Amino acid sequence: MSLPKAVVLLSGGLDSATCLAIAKQEGYECYALSFAYGQRHNIELECARRIATAANVARHIVINIDLRQWGGSALTDDIDVPEAGSTEGIPATYVPARNTIFLSFAVGWAEVLGARDIFIGVNSLDYSGYPDCRPEFIQSFAECARLGTKASDEGWKFNIHAPLQYLKKSEIIRRGTELGVDYAVTHSCYNPAPDGKACGHCDSCHLRQQGFIDAGVPDPTPYAK
Amino acid sequence: MSLPKAVVLLSGGLDSATCLAIAKQEGYECYALSFAYGQRHNIELECARRIATAANVARHIVINIDLRQWGGSALTDDIDVPEAGSTEGIPATYVPARNTIFLSFAVGWAEVLGARDIFIGVNSLDYSGYPDCRPEFIQSFAECARLGTKASDEGWKFNIHAPLQYLKKSEIIRRGTELGVDYAVTHSCYNPAPDGKACGHCDSCHLRQQGFIDAGVPDPTPYAK
Repeated sequence: MSLPKAVVLLSGGLDSATCLAIAKQEGYECYALSFAYGQRHNIELECARRIATAANVARHIVINIDLRQWGGSALTDDIDVPEAGSTEGIPATYVPARNTIFLSFAVGWAEVLGARDIFIGVNSLDYSGYPDCRPEFIQSFAECARLGTKASDEGWKFNIHAPLQYLKKSEIIRRGTELGVDYAVTHSCYNPAPDGKACGHCDSCHLRQQGFIDAGVPDPTPYAK
Repeated sequence: MSLPKAVVLLSGGLDSATCLAIAKQEGYECYALSFAYGQRHNIELECARRIATAANVARHIVINIDLRQWGGSALTDDIDVPEAGSTEGIPATYVPARNTIFLSFAVGWAEVLGARDIFIGVNSLDYSGYPDCRPEFIQSFAECARLGTKASDEGWKFNIHAPLQYLKKSEIIRRGTELGVDYAVTHSCYNPAPDGKACGHCDSCHLRQQGFIDAGVPDPTPYAK
Protein backbone atom coordinates (compact mmCIF):
# COMPACT_ATOMS: atom_id res chain seq x y z
CA MET A 1 0.00 0.00 0.00
CA SER A 2 1.37 3.40 -0.90
CA LEU A 3 1.95 5.99 1.80
CA PRO A 4 -0.21 9.11 1.92
CA LYS A 5 1.55 12.11 0.42
CA ALA A 6 2.35 15.32 2.27
CA VAL A 7 3.87 18.60 1.16
CA VAL A 8 6.39 19.80 3.74
CA LEU A 9 7.62 23.40 3.80
CA LEU A 10 11.37 23.25 4.27
CA SER A 11 13.34 26.43 4.88
CA GLY A 12 16.57 24.72 5.85
CA GLY A 13 16.24 25.85 9.46
CA LEU A 14 16.10 23.85 12.65
CA ASP A 15 12.31 23.91 12.92
CA SER A 16 11.44 22.82 9.39
CA ALA A 17 14.07 20.05 9.46
CA THR A 18 12.41 18.72 12.61
CA CYS A 19 8.98 19.11 11.06
CA LEU A 20 10.06 17.03 8.06
CA ALA A 21 11.39 14.30 10.36
CA ILE A 22 8.04 14.25 12.19
CA ALA A 23 6.09 14.03 8.91
CA LYS A 24 8.23 11.07 7.88
CA GLN A 25 7.81 9.39 11.24
CA GLU A 26 4.04 9.82 10.98
CA GLY A 27 4.12 7.77 7.79
CA TYR A 28 3.88 10.31 4.98
CA GLU A 29 5.66 10.25 1.64
CA CYS A 30 7.17 13.72 1.78
CA TYR A 31 7.36 16.35 -0.96
CA ALA A 32 9.62 19.16 0.25
CA LEU A 33 9.04 22.74 -0.85
CA SER A 34 11.54 25.59 -0.40
CA PHE A 35 11.65 29.18 -1.61
CA ALA A 36 14.41 31.37 -2.95
CA TYR A 37 12.71 34.63 -2.06
CA GLY A 38 15.70 36.92 -2.09
CA GLN A 39 16.50 36.21 1.54
CA ARG A 40 19.70 37.64 2.97
CA HIS A 41 20.47 34.22 4.45
CA ASN A 42 20.06 32.18 1.28
CA ILE A 43 22.66 29.74 2.56
CA GLU A 44 19.62 28.10 4.16
CA LEU A 45 18.62 26.81 0.71
CA GLU A 46 21.78 24.74 0.47
CA CYS A 47 20.90 23.38 3.90
CA ALA A 48 17.36 22.63 2.67
CA ARG A 49 18.79 20.61 -0.22
CA ARG A 50 21.03 18.59 2.10
CA ILE A 51 18.20 17.99 4.58
CA ALA A 52 15.83 16.91 1.80
CA THR A 53 18.40 14.50 0.41
CA ALA A 54 19.19 13.05 3.83
CA ALA A 55 15.48 12.56 4.48
CA ASN A 56 15.07 10.83 1.14
CA VAL A 57 12.05 12.91 0.13
CA ALA A 58 10.03 11.90 -2.94
CA ARG A 59 10.79 15.27 -4.55
CA HIS A 60 12.23 18.63 -3.53
CA ILE A 61 11.24 21.79 -5.37
CA VAL A 62 12.79 25.22 -4.82
CA ILE A 63 10.49 27.99 -6.06
CA ASN A 64 12.05 31.28 -7.12
CA ILE A 65 10.04 34.30 -5.96
CA ASP A 66 12.00 37.48 -5.63
CA LEU A 67 10.36 39.37 -2.78
CA ARG A 68 13.13 41.99 -3.02
CA GLN A 69 10.94 43.57 -5.69
CA TRP A 70 9.08 45.26 -2.89
CA GLY A 71 11.35 44.61 0.08
CA GLY A 72 9.94 45.85 3.38
CA SER A 73 11.86 43.40 5.57
CA ALA A 74 15.34 43.21 7.03
CA LEU A 75 15.61 39.83 5.31
CA THR A 76 14.84 41.08 1.80
CA ASP A 77 15.73 44.77 1.85
CA ASP A 78 18.50 47.13 2.87
CA ILE A 79 17.38 47.21 6.51
CA ASP A 80 19.66 46.12 9.37
CA VAL A 81 18.88 42.84 11.12
CA PRO A 82 18.19 43.81 14.74
CA GLU A 83 20.04 42.20 17.65
CA ALA A 84 18.04 39.78 19.79
CA GLY A 85 15.70 41.49 22.25
CA SER A 86 16.35 44.97 20.88
CA THR A 87 12.85 45.63 19.54
CA GLU A 88 9.25 45.48 20.77
CA GLY A 89 6.35 44.10 18.72
CA ILE A 90 6.74 42.60 15.26
CA PRO A 91 10.45 42.79 14.39
CA ALA A 92 12.09 44.15 11.23
CA THR A 93 12.87 40.60 10.08
CA TYR A 94 9.16 39.94 9.52
CA VAL A 95 8.59 39.32 5.79
CA PRO A 96 5.08 40.51 4.88
CA ALA A 97 2.72 37.63 4.13
CA ARG A 98 5.59 35.16 3.77
CA ASN A 99 3.84 32.13 5.25
CA THR A 100 0.61 32.96 3.41
CA ILE A 101 2.59 32.90 0.17
CA PHE A 102 4.46 29.72 1.11
CA LEU A 103 1.31 27.89 2.18
CA SER A 104 -0.51 28.96 -0.99
CA PHE A 105 2.15 27.29 -3.12
CA ALA A 106 2.03 24.24 -0.86
CA VAL A 107 -1.72 23.96 -1.40
CA GLY A 108 -1.28 24.28 -5.16
CA TRP A 109 1.29 21.50 -5.24
CA ALA A 110 -0.72 19.34 -2.85
CA GLU A 111 -3.77 19.64 -5.06
CA VAL A 112 -1.78 18.51 -8.10
CA LEU A 113 -0.24 15.62 -6.14
CA GLY A 114 -3.55 14.55 -4.67
CA ALA A 115 -2.17 15.21 -1.18
CA ARG A 116 -4.41 16.44 1.61
CA ASP A 117 -1.68 17.02 4.16
CA ILE A 118 0.70 19.95 4.48
CA PHE A 119 3.35 20.37 7.16
CA ILE A 120 4.74 23.70 8.33
CA GLY A 121 7.24 24.18 11.14
CA VAL A 122 5.70 27.26 12.72
CA ASN A 123 6.05 27.75 16.43
CA SER A 124 4.38 30.26 18.69
CA LEU A 125 6.39 29.91 21.88
CA ASP A 126 10.08 30.45 21.14
CA TYR A 127 9.61 32.56 18.02
CA SER A 128 10.19 36.05 16.70
CA GLY A 129 6.60 37.26 17.09
CA TYR A 130 5.58 36.95 13.45
CA PRO A 131 1.79 37.05 12.99
CA ASP A 132 1.90 34.32 10.35
CA CYS A 133 3.23 31.77 12.86
CA ARG A 134 0.18 31.84 15.15
CA PRO A 135 -2.37 29.04 15.42
CA GLU A 136 -5.34 31.25 14.51
CA PHE A 137 -3.64 32.13 11.22
CA ILE A 138 -2.91 28.48 10.42
CA GLN A 139 -6.52 27.48 11.16
CA SER A 140 -7.86 30.32 9.05
CA PHE A 141 -5.57 29.40 6.17
CA ALA A 142 -6.79 25.80 6.22
CA GLU A 143 -10.37 26.96 5.74
CA CYS A 144 -9.33 29.36 3.00
CA ALA A 145 -7.48 26.55 1.22
CA ARG A 146 -10.54 24.33 1.38
CA LEU A 147 -12.79 27.03 -0.10
CA GLY A 148 -10.33 28.00 -2.85
CA THR A 149 -9.69 24.53 -4.26
CA LYS A 150 -11.41 21.40 -5.50
CA ALA A 151 -11.67 20.30 -1.88
CA SER A 152 -14.81 22.40 -1.45
CA ASP A 153 -16.49 20.72 -4.42
CA GLU A 154 -15.38 17.24 -3.41
CA GLY A 155 -16.26 17.52 0.28
CA TRP A 156 -12.86 17.18 1.93
CA LYS A 157 -10.34 19.57 3.47
CA PHE A 158 -6.61 20.12 3.72
CA ASN A 159 -4.94 19.28 7.02
CA ILE A 160 -2.34 21.92 7.81
CA HIS A 161 -0.09 20.21 10.34
CA ALA A 162 1.95 22.46 12.61
CA PRO A 163 3.46 19.88 14.94
CA LEU A 164 5.86 22.37 16.56
CA GLN A 165 3.17 24.96 17.26
CA TYR A 166 3.21 24.61 21.04
CA LEU A 167 6.70 23.23 21.65
CA LYS A 168 9.56 25.12 23.28
CA LYS A 169 12.72 25.34 21.19
CA SER A 170 14.43 22.88 23.55
CA GLU A 171 11.57 20.41 23.08
CA ILE A 172 11.86 20.73 19.30
CA ILE A 173 15.58 20.00 19.50
CA ARG A 174 15.06 16.99 21.77
CA ARG A 175 12.35 15.63 19.48
CA GLY A 176 14.49 16.09 16.38
CA THR A 177 17.50 14.56 18.05
CA GLU A 178 15.44 11.46 18.88
CA LEU A 179 14.37 11.29 15.23
CA GLY A 180 17.96 11.52 14.00
CA VAL A 181 17.91 15.08 12.61
CA ASP A 182 21.45 16.29 11.94
CA TYR A 183 21.26 19.87 13.18
CA ALA A 184 24.76 20.55 11.86
CA VAL A 185 23.24 20.90 8.39
CA THR A 186 20.47 23.26 9.48
CA HIS A 187 20.78 27.04 9.37
CA SER A 188 18.89 29.54 11.54
CA CYS A 189 20.84 32.83 11.44
CA TYR A 190 19.18 35.82 9.75
CA ASN A 191 22.46 37.56 9.10
CA PRO A 192 25.25 35.09 8.37
CA ALA A 193 28.86 36.09 7.69
CA PRO A 194 30.12 35.75 4.10
CA ASP A 195 31.61 32.36 5.01
CA GLY A 196 28.16 31.15 6.13
CA LYS A 197 28.86 31.23 9.85
CA ALA A 198 25.96 32.26 12.09
CA CYS A 199 26.20 35.76 13.59
CA GLY A 200 25.31 34.68 17.12
CA HIS A 201 23.51 37.96 17.79
CA CYS A 202 20.21 37.98 15.90
CA ASP A 203 16.94 36.81 17.39
CA SER A 204 17.07 33.53 15.53
CA CYS A 205 20.63 32.72 16.71
CA HIS A 206 19.63 33.63 20.25
CA LEU A 207 16.60 31.31 20.25
CA ARG A 208 18.68 28.52 18.74
CA GLN A 209 21.56 28.86 21.19
CA GLN A 210 19.25 28.93 24.21
CA GLY A 211 17.30 25.97 22.81
CA PHE A 212 20.39 23.76 22.66
CA ILE A 213 21.42 24.82 26.17
CA ASP A 214 17.95 24.09 27.59
CA ALA A 215 17.76 20.77 25.72
CA GLY A 216 21.13 19.68 27.08
CA VAL A 217 22.21 18.86 23.52
CA PRO A 218 25.57 20.06 22.12
CA ASP A 219 25.09 22.93 19.63
CA PRO A 220 26.85 21.98 16.36
CA THR A 221 26.49 25.49 14.92
CA PRO A 222 29.65 27.37 13.86
CA TYR A 223 29.26 30.95 15.11
CA ALA A 224 31.29 33.85 13.72
CA LYS A 225 32.24 35.14 17.19
CA MET B 1 -4.12 65.02 0.10
CA SER B 2 -2.71 61.81 -1.27
CA LEU B 3 -5.00 59.09 -2.58
CA PRO B 4 -5.35 55.80 -0.70
CA LYS B 5 -3.27 53.06 -2.29
CA ALA B 6 -4.65 49.82 -3.67
CA VAL B 7 -2.99 46.73 -5.11
CA VAL B 8 -4.89 45.57 -8.20
CA LEU B 9 -4.41 42.08 -9.63
CA LEU B 10 -4.09 42.49 -13.38
CA SER B 11 -4.02 39.43 -15.62
CA GLY B 12 -4.41 41.33 -18.87
CA GLY B 13 -7.90 39.97 -19.40
CA LEU B 14 -11.21 41.73 -19.83
CA ASP B 15 -12.26 41.36 -16.19
CA SER B 16 -9.10 42.59 -14.54
CA ALA B 17 -8.82 45.56 -16.93
CA THR B 18 -12.34 46.56 -15.91
CA CYS B 19 -11.53 46.00 -12.24
CA LEU B 20 -8.53 48.34 -12.53
CA ALA B 21 -10.71 51.01 -14.15
CA ILE B 22 -13.19 50.69 -11.27
CA ALA B 23 -10.43 50.97 -8.66
CA LYS B 24 -9.20 54.15 -10.34
CA GLN B 25 -12.69 55.57 -10.54
CA GLU B 26 -13.19 54.86 -6.84
CA GLY B 27 -10.24 57.12 -6.11
CA TYR B 28 -7.36 54.75 -5.43
CA GLU B 29 -3.75 55.15 -6.44
CA CYS B 30 -3.29 51.81 -8.15
CA TYR B 31 -0.37 49.37 -7.92
CA ALA B 32 -0.86 46.68 -10.56
CA LEU B 33 0.37 43.13 -9.99
CA SER B 34 0.68 40.47 -12.68
CA PHE B 35 2.18 36.98 -12.76
CA ALA B 36 4.23 35.11 -15.29
CA TYR B 37 3.26 31.66 -14.02
CA GLY B 38 4.10 29.62 -17.07
CA GLN B 39 0.66 30.16 -18.60
CA ARG B 40 0.06 28.90 -22.10
CA HIS B 41 -1.50 32.27 -22.96
CA ASN B 42 1.35 34.47 -21.77
CA ILE B 43 0.47 37.01 -24.42
CA GLU B 44 -1.86 38.30 -21.70
CA LEU B 45 1.19 39.74 -19.91
CA GLU B 46 1.93 42.06 -22.80
CA CYS B 47 -1.72 43.13 -22.60
CA ALA B 48 -1.32 43.68 -18.85
CA ARG B 49 1.65 45.98 -19.49
CA ARG B 50 -0.29 48.02 -22.03
CA ILE B 51 -3.37 48.24 -19.78
CA ALA B 52 -1.22 49.31 -16.79
CA THR B 53 0.49 51.99 -18.87
CA ALA B 54 -2.80 53.27 -20.28
CA ALA B 55 -4.26 53.43 -16.76
CA ASN B 56 -1.20 55.33 -15.54
CA VAL B 57 -0.72 53.09 -12.50
CA ALA B 58 1.78 54.12 -9.82
CA ARG B 59 3.77 50.93 -10.43
CA HIS B 60 3.32 47.63 -12.25
CA ILE B 61 5.17 44.53 -11.09
CA VAL B 62 5.22 41.20 -12.92
CA ILE B 63 6.16 38.35 -10.59
CA ASN B 64 7.78 35.26 -12.07
CA ILE B 65 6.46 32.05 -10.57
CA ASP B 66 6.81 29.00 -12.73
CA LEU B 67 3.83 26.81 -11.88
CA ARG B 68 4.85 24.46 -14.68
CA GLN B 69 7.10 22.88 -12.08
CA TRP B 70 4.12 20.88 -10.97
CA GLY B 71 1.66 21.51 -13.79
CA GLY B 72 -1.74 19.96 -13.19
CA SER B 73 -3.68 22.40 -15.38
CA ALA B 74 -4.38 22.77 -19.09
CA LEU B 75 -2.91 26.27 -18.76
CA THR B 76 0.44 25.17 -17.33
CA ASP B 77 0.85 21.59 -18.44
CA ASP B 78 0.65 19.38 -21.50
CA ILE B 79 -3.13 18.99 -21.21
CA ASP B 80 -5.52 20.08 -23.98
CA VAL B 81 -7.64 23.15 -23.41
CA PRO B 82 -11.25 21.91 -23.56
CA GLU B 83 -13.81 23.48 -25.88
CA ALA B 84 -16.50 25.58 -24.23
CA GLY B 85 -19.28 23.56 -22.60
CA SER B 86 -17.53 20.23 -23.15
CA THR B 87 -16.91 19.37 -19.50
CA GLU B 88 -18.87 19.18 -16.25
CA GLY B 89 -17.60 20.45 -12.90
CA ILE B 90 -14.26 22.20 -12.44
CA PRO B 91 -12.61 22.34 -15.88
CA ALA B 92 -9.07 21.33 -16.88
CA THR B 93 -8.07 24.99 -17.17
CA TYR B 94 -8.36 25.40 -13.40
CA VAL B 95 -4.90 26.19 -12.00
CA PRO B 96 -4.67 24.78 -8.47
CA ALA B 97 -4.64 27.51 -5.82
CA ARG B 98 -3.89 30.22 -8.38
CA ASN B 99 -5.93 33.00 -6.81
CA THR B 100 -4.75 32.04 -3.32
CA ILE B 101 -1.18 32.46 -4.55
CA PHE B 102 -1.94 35.72 -6.38
CA LEU B 103 -3.80 37.23 -3.42
CA SER B 104 -1.01 36.22 -1.04
CA PHE B 105 1.49 38.21 -3.06
CA ALA B 106 -0.98 41.11 -3.25
CA VAL B 107 -1.25 41.13 0.54
CA GLY B 108 2.53 41.09 0.91
CA TRP B 109 2.95 44.05 -1.41
CA ALA B 110 0.01 45.89 0.16
CA GLU B 111 1.54 45.49 3.60
CA VAL B 112 4.83 46.95 2.39
CA LEU B 113 3.04 49.83 0.64
CA GLY B 114 0.82 50.56 3.63
CA ALA B 115 -2.24 49.78 1.48
CA ARG B 116 -5.33 48.21 2.99
CA ASP B 117 -7.21 47.68 -0.26
CA ILE B 118 -6.79 44.93 -2.82
CA PHE B 119 -8.83 44.55 -6.00
CA ILE B 120 -9.41 41.28 -7.80
CA GLY B 121 -11.59 40.82 -10.89
CA VAL B 122 -13.19 37.53 -9.92
CA ASN B 123 -16.69 36.84 -11.09
CA SER B 124 -19.07 34.07 -10.10
CA LEU B 125 -21.77 34.37 -12.73
CA ASP B 126 -20.23 34.17 -16.20
CA TYR B 127 -17.12 32.25 -15.20
CA SER B 128 -15.46 28.90 -15.71
CA GLY B 129 -16.49 27.40 -12.36
CA TYR B 130 -13.18 27.83 -10.58
CA PRO B 131 -13.53 27.48 -6.79
CA ASP B 132 -11.14 30.38 -6.15
CA CYS B 133 -13.52 32.85 -7.83
CA ARG B 134 -16.35 32.39 -5.36
CA PRO B 135 -17.39 34.96 -2.75
CA GLU B 136 -16.95 32.59 0.21
CA PHE B 137 -13.32 32.06 -0.79
CA ILE B 138 -12.68 35.80 -1.12
CA GLN B 139 -14.22 36.46 2.31
CA SER B 140 -12.22 33.66 3.88
CA PHE B 141 -9.02 34.93 2.33
CA ALA B 142 -9.59 38.42 3.74
CA GLU B 143 -9.79 37.01 7.27
CA CYS B 144 -6.72 34.87 6.68
CA ALA B 145 -4.81 37.94 5.43
CA ARG B 146 -5.78 39.89 8.53
CA LEU B 147 -4.60 37.13 10.86
CA GLY B 148 -1.33 36.52 9.00
CA THR B 149 -0.09 40.12 8.90
CA LYS B 150 0.51 43.19 11.05
CA ALA B 151 -3.18 44.03 10.57
CA SER B 152 -4.08 41.66 13.41
CA ASP B 153 -1.67 43.40 15.80
CA GLU B 154 -2.68 46.87 14.70
CA GLY B 155 -6.44 46.32 14.77
CA TRP B 156 -7.37 46.80 11.12
CA LYS B 157 -8.15 44.52 8.18
CA PHE B 158 -7.58 44.23 4.45
CA ASN B 159 -10.50 44.99 2.17
CA ILE B 160 -10.53 42.53 -0.69
CA HIS B 161 -12.66 44.25 -3.33
CA ALA B 162 -14.27 42.03 -5.93
CA PRO B 163 -16.42 44.57 -7.76
CA LEU B 164 -17.27 42.17 -10.60
CA GLN B 165 -18.35 39.34 -8.29
CA TYR B 166 -22.05 39.47 -9.11
CA LEU B 167 -21.99 41.07 -12.56
CA LYS B 168 -22.83 39.32 -15.81
CA LYS B 169 -20.13 39.46 -18.47
CA SER B 170 -22.26 41.89 -20.48
CA GLU B 171 -22.59 44.17 -17.44
CA ILE B 172 -18.82 44.09 -16.93
CA ILE B 173 -18.29 45.10 -20.56
CA ARG B 174 -20.83 47.90 -20.35
CA ARG B 175 -19.29 49.20 -17.12
CA GLY B 176 -15.78 49.10 -18.57
CA THR B 177 -16.89 50.76 -21.78
CA GLU B 178 -18.37 53.63 -19.74
CA LEU B 179 -15.05 53.93 -17.92
CA GLY B 180 -13.08 54.05 -21.16
CA VAL B 181 -11.46 50.60 -21.04
CA ASP B 182 -9.97 49.72 -24.42
CA TYR B 183 -10.93 46.07 -24.73
CA ALA B 184 -8.87 45.74 -27.89
CA VAL B 185 -5.76 45.50 -25.69
CA THR B 186 -7.24 42.85 -23.37
CA HIS B 187 -6.78 39.12 -23.88
CA SER B 188 -9.09 36.36 -22.66
CA CYS B 189 -8.32 33.25 -24.74
CA TYR B 190 -6.79 30.25 -22.94
CA ASN B 191 -5.36 28.80 -26.11
CA PRO B 192 -4.25 31.54 -28.52
CA ALA B 193 -2.74 30.86 -31.94
CA PRO B 194 1.00 31.51 -32.38
CA ASP B 195 0.18 34.94 -33.81
CA GLY B 196 -1.73 35.81 -30.63
CA LYS B 197 -5.21 35.57 -32.11
CA ALA B 198 -7.93 34.16 -29.83
CA CYS B 199 -9.06 30.60 -30.61
CA GLY B 200 -12.77 31.41 -30.43
CA HIS B 201 -13.56 27.95 -29.02
CA CYS B 202 -12.41 27.81 -25.40
CA ASP B 203 -14.64 28.60 -22.47
CA SER B 204 -13.06 32.00 -21.99
CA CYS B 205 -13.53 33.01 -25.66
CA HIS B 206 -17.10 31.80 -25.51
CA LEU B 207 -17.91 33.87 -22.41
CA ARG B 208 -16.23 36.91 -23.95
CA GLN B 209 -18.00 36.64 -27.31
CA GLN B 210 -21.41 36.19 -25.70
CA GLY B 211 -20.70 39.08 -23.34
CA PHE B 212 -20.06 41.52 -26.16
CA ILE B 213 -23.19 40.32 -27.98
CA ASP B 214 -25.34 40.70 -24.86
CA ALA B 215 -23.83 44.11 -24.07
CA GLY B 216 -24.50 45.37 -27.57
CA VAL B 217 -20.90 46.51 -27.81
CA PRO B 218 -18.74 45.65 -30.86
CA ASP B 219 -16.19 42.93 -30.04
CA PRO B 220 -12.73 44.22 -31.01
CA THR B 221 -11.10 40.78 -30.54
CA PRO B 222 -9.28 39.21 -33.51
CA TYR B 223 -10.28 35.53 -33.61
CA ALA B 224 -8.28 32.92 -35.50
CA LYS B 225 -11.35 31.47 -37.22
